Amino acid sequence: MSFKEKGLLVVLSGPSGVGKGTVCKALRARGTHLQYSISVTTRKPREGEKDGIHYFFRDREQFQQMIREDKLLEWAEYVGNFYGTPVDYVRETINAGQDVILEIEVQGALQIKRRFPEATFIFLAPPTLGELKKRIIGRGTETADLIESRMSVAKSEMELMENYNYVVENDQVEKACDRIESIVLAEHCRVDHIIEKYKDSEGAD
Amino acid sequence: MSFKEKGLLVVLSGPSGVGKGTVCKALRARGTHLQYSISVTTRKPREGEKDGIHYFFRDREQFQQMIREDKLLEWAEYVGNFYGTPVDYVRETINAGQDVILEIEVQGALQIKRRFPEATFIFLAPPTLGELKKRIIGRGTETADLIESRMSVAKSEMELMENYNYVVENDQVEKACDRIESIVLAEHCRVDHIIEKYKDSEGAD
Repeated sequence: MSFKEKGLLVVLSGPSGVGKGTVCKALRARGTHLQYSISVTTRKPREGEKDGIHYFFRDREQFQQMIREDKLLEWAEYVGNFYGTPVDYVRETINAGQDVILEIEVQGALQIKRRFPEATFIFLAPPTLGELKKRIIGRGTETADLIESRMSVAKSEMELMENYNYVVENDQVEKACDRIESIVLAEHCRVDHIIEKYKDSEGAD
Repeated sequence: MSFKEKGLLVVLSGPSGVGKGTVCKALRARGTHLQYSISVTTRKPREGEKDGIHYFFRDREQFQQMIREDKLLEWAEYVGNFYGTPVDYVRETINAGQDVILEIEVQGALQIKRRFPEATFIFLAPPTLGELKKRIIGRGTETADLIESRMSVAKSEMELMENYNYVVENDQVEKACDRIESIVLAEHCRVDHIIEKYKDSEGAD
Protein backbone atom coordinates (compact mmCIF):
# COMPACT_ATOMS: atom_id res chain seq x y z
CA MET A 1 0.00 0.00 0.00
CA SER A 2 3.03 2.24 -0.43
CA PHE A 3 2.04 3.38 -3.92
CA LYS A 4 1.98 7.12 -4.42
CA GLU A 5 0.92 8.26 -7.86
CA LYS A 6 3.36 10.62 -9.53
CA GLY A 7 2.36 13.67 -11.49
CA LEU A 8 3.04 14.08 -15.20
CA LEU A 9 5.28 16.49 -17.03
CA VAL A 10 3.18 17.81 -19.92
CA VAL A 11 5.12 19.68 -22.60
CA LEU A 12 2.93 21.89 -24.80
CA SER A 13 4.71 23.04 -27.89
CA GLY A 14 4.14 24.00 -31.52
CA PRO A 15 5.05 26.62 -34.11
CA SER A 16 5.19 30.26 -33.21
CA GLY A 17 1.79 31.89 -33.77
CA VAL A 18 -0.24 28.73 -33.18
CA GLY A 19 -1.66 30.00 -29.90
CA LYS A 20 0.26 28.17 -27.15
CA GLY A 21 0.00 31.13 -24.79
CA THR A 22 -3.73 31.61 -25.42
CA VAL A 23 -4.45 27.93 -24.80
CA CYS A 24 -2.41 27.92 -21.57
CA LYS A 25 -4.23 31.02 -20.37
CA ALA A 26 -7.59 29.37 -21.12
CA LEU A 27 -6.52 26.23 -19.21
CA ARG A 28 -5.61 28.41 -16.23
CA ALA A 29 -8.96 30.19 -16.45
CA ARG A 30 -10.69 26.80 -16.24
CA GLY A 31 -8.85 26.04 -13.03
CA THR A 32 -7.42 22.88 -14.58
CA HIS A 33 -5.34 21.08 -12.01
CA LEU A 34 -1.96 21.78 -13.62
CA GLN A 35 1.07 23.42 -12.08
CA TYR A 36 2.79 25.82 -14.47
CA SER A 37 6.52 25.30 -14.72
CA ILE A 38 8.66 28.13 -13.36
CA SER A 39 11.65 29.13 -15.50
CA VAL A 40 15.08 30.21 -14.34
CA THR A 41 16.23 33.47 -15.92
CA THR A 42 19.14 35.86 -15.80
CA ARG A 43 16.97 38.84 -16.67
CA LYS A 44 16.23 41.34 -13.91
CA PRO A 45 12.88 41.06 -12.10
CA ARG A 46 10.25 43.50 -13.33
CA GLU A 47 7.99 45.43 -10.97
CA GLY A 48 5.92 42.96 -8.94
CA GLU A 49 7.73 39.81 -10.10
CA LYS A 50 8.68 37.48 -7.25
CA ASP A 51 11.49 34.92 -7.15
CA GLY A 52 10.13 31.37 -7.04
CA ILE A 53 6.71 32.49 -8.26
CA HIS A 54 7.11 34.18 -11.64
CA TYR A 55 10.70 33.09 -12.24
CA PHE A 56 13.72 31.86 -10.38
CA PHE A 57 16.01 34.88 -10.77
CA ARG A 58 19.70 33.97 -10.99
CA ASP A 59 22.84 35.78 -12.16
CA ARG A 60 24.79 34.62 -15.20
CA GLU A 61 27.41 32.86 -13.09
CA GLN A 62 24.72 30.84 -11.26
CA PHE A 63 22.98 30.03 -14.55
CA GLN A 64 26.25 28.81 -16.13
CA GLN A 65 26.80 26.64 -13.09
CA MET A 66 23.31 25.11 -13.49
CA ILE A 67 24.20 24.25 -17.10
CA ARG A 68 27.50 22.67 -16.00
CA GLU A 69 25.77 20.68 -13.25
CA ASP A 70 23.06 19.47 -15.66
CA LYS A 71 20.34 21.16 -13.63
CA LEU A 72 18.36 22.41 -16.64
CA LEU A 73 15.96 20.35 -18.77
CA GLU A 74 16.54 22.87 -21.55
CA TRP A 75 17.83 26.39 -21.89
CA ALA A 76 18.14 29.12 -24.50
CA GLU A 77 19.40 32.68 -24.86
CA TYR A 78 16.88 35.31 -25.88
CA VAL A 79 17.77 38.98 -26.44
CA GLY A 80 20.82 38.80 -24.22
CA ASN A 81 19.23 36.90 -21.32
CA PHE A 82 19.25 33.22 -20.48
CA TYR A 83 16.09 31.22 -19.78
CA GLY A 84 15.86 27.59 -18.71
CA THR A 85 13.71 24.91 -17.09
CA PRO A 86 15.06 23.71 -13.73
CA VAL A 87 15.02 19.93 -13.49
CA ASP A 88 14.87 19.85 -9.66
CA TYR A 89 11.70 21.93 -9.52
CA VAL A 90 9.99 19.71 -12.11
CA ARG A 91 11.05 16.47 -10.42
CA GLU A 92 10.03 17.62 -6.93
CA THR A 93 6.64 18.78 -8.17
CA ILE A 94 5.78 15.58 -10.01
CA ASN A 95 7.13 13.44 -7.17
CA ALA A 96 4.64 15.27 -4.94
CA GLY A 97 1.88 13.99 -7.25
CA GLN A 98 1.25 17.26 -9.06
CA ASP A 99 1.09 17.55 -12.87
CA VAL A 100 3.36 20.18 -14.39
CA ILE A 101 2.71 21.90 -17.72
CA LEU A 102 5.44 23.58 -19.68
CA GLU A 103 4.75 25.83 -22.68
CA ILE A 104 7.76 25.96 -24.97
CA GLU A 105 8.86 26.33 -28.57
CA VAL A 106 9.73 23.28 -30.67
CA GLN A 107 13.52 23.27 -30.24
CA GLY A 108 13.16 23.48 -26.46
CA ALA A 109 10.68 20.61 -26.45
CA LEU A 110 13.12 18.41 -28.34
CA GLN A 111 15.86 19.26 -25.81
CA ILE A 112 13.50 18.18 -23.03
CA LYS A 113 12.68 14.95 -24.82
CA ARG A 114 16.33 13.92 -24.70
CA ARG A 115 16.50 14.57 -20.95
CA PHE A 116 13.00 13.51 -19.94
CA PRO A 117 11.58 11.08 -22.51
CA GLU A 118 8.79 9.96 -20.15
CA ALA A 119 7.11 13.37 -20.37
CA THR A 120 3.89 13.78 -22.38
CA PHE A 121 4.67 15.77 -25.52
CA ILE A 122 1.77 17.61 -27.11
CA PHE A 123 2.17 19.37 -30.45
CA LEU A 124 -0.33 22.21 -30.82
CA ALA A 125 -1.06 22.43 -34.55
CA PRO A 126 -2.85 25.01 -36.67
CA PRO A 127 -5.77 23.62 -38.72
CA THR A 128 -3.67 24.41 -41.83
CA LEU A 129 -0.51 26.37 -42.59
CA GLY A 130 -2.72 28.88 -44.39
CA GLU A 131 -4.63 29.47 -41.16
CA LEU A 132 -1.34 29.93 -39.27
CA LYS A 133 -0.28 32.55 -41.80
CA LYS A 134 -3.57 34.40 -41.29
CA ARG A 135 -3.02 34.41 -37.52
CA ILE A 136 0.53 35.77 -37.87
CA ILE A 137 -0.63 38.45 -40.32
CA GLY A 138 -3.55 39.22 -38.00
CA ARG A 139 -1.17 40.22 -35.24
CA GLY A 140 -0.12 43.08 -37.50
CA THR A 141 3.36 43.24 -35.97
CA GLU A 142 5.44 41.62 -38.68
CA THR A 143 6.81 42.73 -42.06
CA ALA A 144 6.08 40.64 -45.17
CA ASP A 145 9.65 39.26 -45.18
CA LEU A 146 9.43 38.27 -41.53
CA ILE A 147 6.08 36.57 -42.17
CA GLU A 148 7.59 34.47 -44.96
CA SER A 149 10.55 33.56 -42.80
CA ARG A 150 8.27 32.55 -39.91
CA MET A 151 6.15 30.46 -42.24
CA SER A 152 9.22 28.66 -43.47
CA VAL A 153 10.28 27.89 -39.88
CA ALA A 154 6.73 26.74 -39.10
CA LYS A 155 6.77 24.33 -42.06
CA SER A 156 9.95 22.68 -40.85
CA GLU A 157 8.61 22.57 -37.28
CA MET A 158 5.46 20.79 -38.51
CA GLU A 159 7.75 18.05 -39.78
CA LEU A 160 9.00 17.47 -36.23
CA MET A 161 5.47 16.56 -35.12
CA GLU A 162 6.27 12.84 -35.18
CA ASN A 163 8.59 13.31 -32.19
CA TYR A 164 5.56 14.11 -30.05
CA ASN A 165 3.01 11.79 -28.42
CA TYR A 166 -0.06 13.81 -29.33
CA VAL A 167 -1.21 16.37 -31.86
CA VAL A 168 -3.89 18.79 -30.67
CA GLU A 169 -5.46 20.95 -33.34
CA ASN A 170 -6.04 24.50 -32.18
CA ASP A 171 -9.10 25.10 -34.33
CA GLN A 172 -10.98 26.52 -31.34
CA VAL A 173 -9.31 27.34 -28.04
CA GLU A 174 -11.95 25.65 -25.88
CA LYS A 175 -11.82 22.47 -27.96
CA ALA A 176 -8.04 22.44 -27.73
CA CYS A 177 -8.35 22.76 -23.92
CA ASP A 178 -10.84 19.85 -23.83
CA ARG A 179 -8.38 17.71 -25.76
CA ILE A 180 -5.47 18.62 -23.49
CA GLU A 181 -7.50 17.90 -20.35
CA SER A 182 -8.53 14.53 -21.81
CA ILE A 183 -4.94 13.69 -22.65
CA VAL A 184 -3.85 14.45 -19.08
CA LEU A 185 -6.63 12.30 -17.62
CA ALA A 186 -5.89 9.47 -20.09
CA GLU A 187 -2.16 9.57 -19.35
CA HIS A 188 -2.94 9.04 -15.66
CA CYS A 189 -4.71 5.81 -16.71
CA ARG A 190 -1.88 4.52 -18.91
CA VAL A 191 -0.81 1.11 -17.74
CA ASP A 192 2.86 2.09 -17.32
CA HIS A 193 1.85 5.01 -15.12
CA ILE A 194 -0.51 3.17 -12.80
CA ILE A 195 0.32 -0.55 -12.75
CA GLU A 196 2.48 -0.32 -9.61
CA LYS A 197 -0.63 0.64 -7.67
CA TYR A 198 -2.18 -2.75 -8.41
CA LYS A 199 1.05 -4.65 -7.87
CA ASP A 200 1.25 -3.17 -4.37
CA SER A 201 -2.27 -4.15 -3.46
CA GLU A 202 -2.39 -7.47 -5.27
CA GLY A 203 -2.49 -9.60 -2.20
CA ALA A 204 -4.85 -7.36 -0.29
CA ASP A 205 -8.41 -8.32 0.41
CA MET B 1 -6.62 16.56 -48.66
CA SER B 2 -7.61 12.91 -49.02
CA PHE B 3 -7.22 12.19 -45.29
CA LYS B 4 -10.21 10.56 -43.67
CA GLU B 5 -9.87 9.91 -39.96
CA LYS B 6 -10.53 6.33 -38.95
CA GLY B 7 -12.50 5.31 -35.91
CA LEU B 8 -10.98 3.38 -33.02
CA LEU B 9 -11.65 -0.10 -31.75
CA VAL B 10 -11.96 0.24 -27.97
CA VAL B 11 -11.85 -3.03 -26.04
CA LEU B 12 -13.26 -2.76 -22.52
CA SER B 13 -12.41 -5.74 -20.39
CA GLY B 14 -11.68 -6.80 -16.84
CA PRO B 15 -12.52 -9.46 -14.28
CA SER B 16 -16.05 -10.77 -13.93
CA GLY B 17 -17.97 -8.72 -11.37
CA VAL B 18 -16.02 -5.49 -11.92
CA GLY B 19 -18.95 -3.76 -13.59
CA LYS B 20 -18.19 -3.78 -17.34
CA GLY B 21 -21.88 -4.02 -18.24
CA THR B 22 -22.88 -1.23 -15.84
CA VAL B 23 -20.18 1.09 -17.20
CA CYS B 24 -21.19 0.36 -20.83
CA LYS B 25 -24.82 1.04 -19.99
CA ALA B 26 -23.87 4.35 -18.35
CA LEU B 27 -21.80 5.33 -21.42
CA ARG B 28 -24.82 4.61 -23.62
CA ALA B 29 -27.04 6.69 -21.34
CA ARG B 30 -24.64 9.61 -21.79
CA GLY B 31 -25.04 9.36 -25.55
CA THR B 32 -21.28 8.94 -25.91
CA HIS B 33 -20.42 8.71 -29.58
CA LEU B 34 -19.47 5.03 -29.58
CA GLN B 35 -20.87 2.26 -31.73
CA TYR B 36 -21.42 -0.96 -29.78
CA SER B 37 -19.97 -4.01 -31.45
CA ILE B 38 -22.51 -6.57 -32.66
CA SER B 39 -21.68 -10.21 -31.95
CA VAL B 40 -22.33 -13.22 -34.13
CA THR B 41 -24.13 -16.01 -32.30
CA THR B 42 -25.54 -19.44 -32.97
CA ARG B 43 -28.19 -19.06 -30.30
CA LYS B 44 -31.78 -18.58 -31.44
CA PRO B 45 -33.19 -15.02 -31.51
CA ARG B 46 -35.34 -14.14 -28.51
CA GLU B 47 -38.60 -12.25 -28.81
CA GLY B 48 -37.91 -8.83 -30.37
CA GLU B 49 -34.25 -9.47 -31.22
CA LYS B 50 -33.32 -8.44 -34.76
CA ASP B 51 -30.53 -9.78 -36.96
CA GLY B 52 -27.83 -7.13 -37.54
CA ILE B 53 -29.05 -5.04 -34.61
CA HIS B 54 -28.87 -7.16 -31.46
CA TYR B 55 -26.81 -9.97 -32.96
CA PHE B 56 -25.88 -11.47 -36.25
CA PHE B 57 -27.76 -14.78 -36.03
CA ARG B 58 -26.01 -17.63 -37.84
CA ASP B 59 -26.27 -21.41 -37.72
CA ARG B 60 -23.43 -23.60 -36.47
CA GLU B 61 -22.25 -24.43 -39.99
CA GLN B 62 -22.01 -20.74 -40.90
CA PHE B 63 -20.22 -19.98 -37.63
CA GLN B 64 -17.68 -22.77 -38.21
CA GLN B 65 -17.06 -21.40 -41.67
CA MET B 66 -16.41 -17.92 -40.22
CA ILE B 67 -13.81 -19.47 -37.92
CA ARG B 68 -12.16 -21.29 -40.84
CA GLU B 69 -12.12 -18.14 -42.95
CA ASP B 70 -10.64 -16.10 -40.11
CA LYS B 71 -13.65 -13.81 -40.00
CA LEU B 72 -13.80 -13.58 -36.20
CA LEU B 73 -11.64 -11.37 -33.99
CA GLU B 74 -12.38 -13.76 -31.13
CA TRP B 75 -14.94 -16.42 -30.35
CA ALA B 76 -16.01 -18.62 -27.45
CA GLU B 77 -18.58 -21.25 -26.60
CA TYR B 78 -20.98 -20.47 -23.77
CA VAL B 79 -23.64 -22.91 -22.53
CA GLY B 80 -23.78 -24.73 -25.83
CA ASN B 81 -23.87 -21.70 -28.12
CA PHE B 82 -21.09 -19.95 -29.97
CA TYR B 83 -20.46 -16.22 -29.75
CA GLY B 84 -17.90 -14.22 -31.70
CA THR B 85 -16.85 -10.77 -32.91
CA PRO B 86 -17.04 -10.36 -36.71
CA VAL B 87 -13.92 -8.72 -38.08
CA ASP B 88 -15.64 -7.32 -41.21
CA TYR B 89 -18.24 -5.44 -39.21
CA VAL B 90 -15.56 -3.89 -36.97
CA ARG B 91 -13.30 -2.92 -39.89
CA GLU B 92 -16.13 -1.42 -41.96
CA THR B 93 -17.37 0.62 -38.99
CA ILE B 94 -13.98 2.08 -38.09
CA ASN B 95 -13.14 2.70 -41.75
CA ALA B 96 -16.31 4.79 -41.87
CA GLY B 97 -14.80 6.93 -39.10
CA GLN B 98 -16.93 5.57 -36.28
CA ASP B 99 -15.47 4.37 -32.95
CA VAL B 100 -16.49 0.87 -31.88
CA ILE B 101 -16.57 -0.33 -28.28
CA LEU B 102 -16.48 -3.97 -27.38
CA GLU B 103 -17.18 -5.26 -23.86
CA ILE B 104 -15.54 -8.61 -23.30
CA GLU B 105 -13.92 -10.83 -20.69
CA VAL B 106 -10.15 -11.01 -20.33
CA GLN B 107 -9.44 -14.11 -22.43
CA GLY B 108 -11.45 -12.70 -25.34
CA ALA B 109 -9.58 -9.39 -25.12
CA LEU B 110 -6.25 -11.19 -25.38
CA GLN B 111 -7.48 -13.08 -28.45
CA ILE B 112 -8.40 -9.72 -30.03
CA LYS B 113 -5.01 -8.28 -29.20
CA ARG B 114 -3.32 -10.94 -31.29
CA ARG B 115 -5.54 -10.16 -34.28
CA PHE B 116 -5.94 -6.43 -33.85
CA PRO B 117 -3.01 -5.02 -31.83
CA GLU B 118 -3.80 -1.42 -32.86
CA ALA B 119 -7.02 -1.46 -30.81
CA THR B 120 -7.21 0.49 -27.54
CA PHE B 121 -7.28 -1.99 -24.67
CA ILE B 122 -8.82 -0.75 -21.42
CA PHE B 123 -8.70 -2.88 -18.28
CA LEU B 124 -11.55 -2.02 -15.93
CA ALA B 125 -10.20 -2.66 -12.43
CA PRO B 126 -11.85 -2.85 -9.02
CA PRO B 127 -10.41 -0.43 -6.44
CA THR B 128 -9.16 -3.53 -4.57
CA LEU B 129 -9.73 -7.27 -4.76
CA GLY B 130 -11.57 -6.98 -1.44
CA GLU B 131 -14.01 -4.58 -3.06
CA LEU B 132 -14.50 -6.96 -6.00
CA LYS B 133 -15.32 -9.75 -3.55
CA LYS B 134 -17.91 -7.53 -1.87
CA ARG B 135 -19.53 -6.83 -5.24
CA ILE B 136 -19.69 -10.52 -6.15
CA ILE B 137 -21.13 -11.39 -2.74
CA GLY B 138 -23.54 -8.46 -3.08
CA ARG B 139 -25.11 -10.04 -6.16
CA GLY B 140 -26.23 -12.81 -3.85
CA THR B 141 -26.28 -15.39 -6.62
CA GLU B 142 -23.15 -17.39 -5.85
CA THR B 143 -22.24 -20.06 -3.33
CA ALA B 144 -19.20 -19.56 -1.09
CA ASP B 145 -17.16 -22.05 -3.14
CA LEU B 146 -18.04 -20.32 -6.39
CA ILE B 147 -17.09 -16.96 -4.87
CA GLU B 148 -13.65 -18.29 -3.91
CA SER B 149 -13.16 -19.76 -7.36
CA ARG B 150 -14.17 -16.50 -9.05
CA MET B 151 -11.82 -14.54 -6.79
CA SER B 152 -8.99 -16.83 -7.75
CA VAL B 153 -9.72 -16.30 -11.47
CA ALA B 154 -9.95 -12.53 -10.86
CA LYS B 155 -6.52 -12.54 -9.18
CA SER B 156 -4.90 -14.18 -12.19
CA GLU B 157 -6.76 -11.86 -14.56
CA MET B 158 -5.43 -8.83 -12.66
CA GLU B 159 -1.95 -10.07 -13.53
CA LEU B 160 -2.79 -9.78 -17.23
CA MET B 161 -3.36 -6.03 -16.84
CA GLU B 162 0.03 -5.21 -18.32
CA ASN B 163 -1.18 -6.44 -21.72
CA TYR B 164 -3.58 -3.50 -21.84
CA ASN B 165 -2.94 0.14 -22.77
CA TYR B 166 -4.98 1.66 -19.96
CA VAL B 167 -6.28 0.79 -16.51
CA VAL B 168 -9.54 2.48 -15.51
CA GLU B 169 -10.52 2.09 -11.90
CA ASN B 170 -14.23 1.51 -11.46
CA ASP B 171 -14.48 3.20 -8.07
CA GLN B 172 -17.52 5.17 -9.22
CA VAL B 173 -19.35 4.45 -12.48
CA GLU B 174 -19.53 8.09 -13.59
CA LYS B 175 -15.83 8.62 -12.93
CA ALA B 176 -15.00 5.46 -14.88
CA CYS B 177 -17.09 6.82 -17.78
CA ASP B 178 -15.24 10.16 -17.65
CA ARG B 179 -11.94 8.32 -17.86
CA ILE B 180 -13.06 6.17 -20.79
CA GLU B 181 -14.38 9.21 -22.68
CA SER B 182 -11.09 11.00 -22.07
CA ILE B 183 -9.11 8.00 -23.30
CA VAL B 184 -11.14 7.89 -26.51
CA LEU B 185 -10.64 11.62 -27.13
CA ALA B 186 -6.92 11.36 -26.32
CA GLU B 187 -6.44 8.36 -28.62
CA HIS B 188 -7.86 10.41 -31.48
CA CYS B 189 -5.06 12.92 -30.82
CA ARG B 190 -2.26 10.33 -30.72
CA VAL B 191 0.38 11.18 -33.25
CA ASP B 192 0.23 7.77 -34.98
CA HIS B 193 -3.52 8.13 -35.42
CA ILE B 194 -3.58 11.65 -36.84
CA ILE B 195 -0.21 12.46 -38.43
CA GLU B 196 -1.36 11.53 -41.97
CA LYS B 197 -3.79 14.40 -41.83
CA TYR B 198 -0.92 16.87 -41.57
CA LYS B 199 1.22 15.06 -44.12
CA ASP B 200 -1.61 15.40 -46.64
CA SER B 201 -2.04 19.10 -46.04
CA GLU B 202 1.63 19.96 -45.52
CA GLY B 203 2.05 21.89 -48.73
CA ALA B 204 -1.31 23.61 -48.49
CA ASP B 205 -1.63 27.27 -47.77
